[in-house]
Amino acid sequence: MNNQILAIKRKLDQLIGADFPIIELEKLLPSASIASYEVDEYFVRAGETTRKVGFVVSGLFRLFYTDYDGKDFTKNFRSSGHFVGAQASLLLKVPSRLNIQALEPSSILCLDYDEILRIAEDNFHWQRLLRKITELDYLEKEQRESDLLFYHATERYLNFKKEHPNWDAQVQLRYIASYLGMSPETLSRIRKNINSAD
Amino acid sequence: MNNQILAIKRKLDQLIGADFPIIELEKLLPSASIASYEVDEYFVRAGETTRKVGFVVSGLFRLFYTDYDGKDFTKNFRSSGHFVGAQASLLLKVPSRLNIQALEPSSILCLDYDEILRIAEDNFHWQRLLRKITELDYLEKEQRESDLLFYHATERYLNFKKEHPNWDAQVQLRYIASYLGMSPETLSRIRKNINSAD
Repeated sequence: MNNQILAIKRKLDQLIGADFPIIELEKLLPSASIASYEVDEYFVRAGETTRKVGFVVSGLFRLFYTDYDGKDFTKNFRSSGHFVGAQASLLLKVPSRLNIQALEPSSILCLDYDEILRIAEDNFHWQRLLRKITELDYLEKEQRESDLLFYHATERYLNFKKEHPNWDAQVQLRYIASYLGMSPETLSRIRKNINSAD
Repeated sequence: MNNQILAIKRKLDQLIGADFPIIELEKLLPSASIASYEVDEYFVRAGETTRKVGFVVSGLFRLFYTDYDGKDFTKNFRSSGHFVGAQASLLLKVPSRLNIQALEPSSILCLDYDEILRIAEDNFHWQRLLRKITELDYLEKEQRESDLLFYHATERYLNFKKEHPNWDAQVQLRYIASYLGMSPETLSRIRKNINSAD
């Protein structure tokens, strides 16, 4: 697990643009564990009040909602080297509306959110870190929201392909379409047009 | 302006669920100013890289995007006792995609975001505060996103009316409809149905 702690430290240093003391991270070790997930297995299931935060060690997860008609909406993906969690459930201690499911065999370093809050309570380094992580999540969300208004479907797909070339190859078409706010048929047509223009 | 500082302190104490030292807020006074806005006047205009954060003293603002076809989308409203700002522009130092415009004669206590960042840099109280504010913004955003999937139009309107009875009376129908993700015709029909059922 020490290797994972170093990987997390590198990630955190990059996030805050400063040194995050490794001694702070080591405080989490007693409550941390590594868990494996098969394809389709859930890290968080809608309806559950979750207290765990994950750091994806390997694999890929899909975050999605299921609406009142049973239709599912892909909110995001999380790959290795990124944190994953159902934030609204963590922050408000309410049942999650979000599902988090493995798209491929995956492994996660599981951390206890209440333990993080306890350690963070009087600690400058943790407060700054939690602030930065939340700001990035906020920006990601706002960017996606406004991308839907500012870019046509083809531009959204090209941006996605550029930012996440791996996901474009790995993830099923219908999930990418849902993430980009278009129908699978539209995405399929866009891909064909792009390929025939190459 | 001292009255406003006290109003802000009360708001902040409530946000973090703890005492935010007034001495920290007073550090902002030299760079703070009160500004008035006429109806339709902009606090932030899309395209502008903004460095100001506002605390609404009186009045009401609408936050909105204009899409590639010139159609406008209401993202939110901000009334007195709340902070207002174009977060993506502030956080990333990029031109704002968002417009923030007064819906009625309004007054704002303007703060300088770079000055806040400077004061916050090594300060536990400010880091915790910025974290809390961002978490609440994140939650508000996630809640709205998932409300669109979990609630039918009538339920969304009833929730809005309950949470913001003032806005329902003050704000033009087409802005509320846009905020709730429905057409003005749908909102008008819903209102009629509700009133005839009373």
